[in-house]
Amino acid sequence: MEIKVVKQVMEWNEDVSQAVKDLLAQKQVCLVNVMGSPGAGKTNLIMGLIRALSPRYRVGVIEGDIAGQIDAETMQGMGVPCVQLQTQGACHIEAMSIQNILPLFSLDDLDVIFVENIGNLVCPAEFNIGEDFRVAVLSIPEGDDKVEKYPLMFATCDGLVLHKYDMLPYFDFDPQRVTDNAKGVNPNVRVFPVSSRTGEGMEPFVAWLTGKVEEKLGKA
Amino acid sequence: MEIKVVKQVMEWNEDVSQAVKDLLAQKQVCLVNVMGSPGAGKTNLIMGLIRALSPRYRVGVIEGDIAGQIDAETMQGMGVPCVQLQTQGACHIEAMSIQNILPLFSLDDLDVIFVENIGNLVCPAEFNIGEDFRVAVLSIPEGDDKVEKYPLMFATCDGLVLHKYDMLPYFDFDPQRVTDNAKGVNPNVRVFPVSSRTGEGMEPFVAWLTGKVEEKLGKA
Repeated sequence: MEIKVVKQVMEWNEDVSQAVKDLLAQKQVCLVNVMGSPGAGKTNLIMGLIRALSPRYRVGVIEGDIAGQIDAETMQGMGVPCVQLQTQGACHIEAMSIQNILPLFSLDDLDVIFVENIGNLVCPAEFNIGEDFRVAVLSIPEGDDKVEKYPLMFATCDGLVLHKYDMLPYFDFDPQRVTDNAKGVNPNVRVFPVSSRTGEGMEPFVAWLTGKVEEKLGKA
Repeated sequence: MEIKVVKQVMEWNEDVSQAVKDLLAQKQVCLVNVMGSPGAGKTNLIMGLIRALSPRYRVGVIEGDIAGQIDAETMQGMGVPCVQLQTQGACHIEAMSIQNILPLFSLDDLDVIFVENIGNLVCPAEFNIGEDFRVAVLSIPEGDDKVEKYPLMFATCDGLVLHKYDMLPYFDFDPQRVTDNAKGVNPNVRVFPVSSRTGEGMEPFVAWLTGKVEEKLGKA
């Protein structure tokens, strides 16, 4: 499948974010903003979600990267429509980019679009992109002090995945510390220990995510 | 009528960066900008460097974080002067912050200052802070595709540490891929596999870093 590449353009973000929301409400498509550090495992997590959701939903993907198209190439094997967004140096995706990309999809044939944001625990949290909800991915090797250091990311996410959870024995990481801190800045956040490698923890995460999608699609 | 001119942020940053450089040249202090993702192990690496360099040099540390003072607290046990810089949401350190912080140190009593930049592979690379040289830290769990995805960080560093190298057996990480890609964007970069936990690889890294410090201090 051909990889489409779109360059990021600057614009007023909140207005455009609302326009994206309006279009996706009309088209009945749920947009999920997936954020986390470089190497947190966002691509692998999204691939696991595509496998889990595909029987029920028609899924698309927007891969955000500063340069290159590695993740879109990885995604090619999944058989879902995928657009690679190149931000050309910018540290986050803006709503304008999503607005420019959406016409490249056949929205009538989609239920869910996952946006893999730039690997960055800071800037992406500041920019709404018209998403219905946000998933933050924090991997075990990164350490258990990240909520205290990067509070906005964890305060604004709906779901928090503690990823590469099978690596817990090898790292000094206290899941309770992260959970307590995340709930401290974001009382309603749901926390999911997940290993994309072993599949551990995927089921409750997928169940929660399906519930969120159903909320949007109004099929619950 | 007089034309008022306002400089763009980046240009303003360059002027202040030069002022920091001038002050540190006069005071004979070497400033090292340490950058990498959240959880790459920058703090542990700097602690290892302090232990290795302390017999020879008087070391200070600036800990950059968006919020909190976890790293400065960690650093307290090292017995070196340390200032915690809180960027209050900003994704990188600017030269102005370093200019404001330097008077808090007794510069006549220091040879080297390590700056631990915000955990972020993107934005810090765009801002000079008056540093003499840059160390990028990429940890094995982050994955071996990071040079391709975040080229500026690796194009502008002087030394690249492949950190948590003892974790290599547990992750799908090809050090040669990273080294080749880093040399591709930055032919003079020096690459050091290091484990702060086991001490593996610290010796050549410290030797290189000592050489860079000597260049600055003019004692070589």
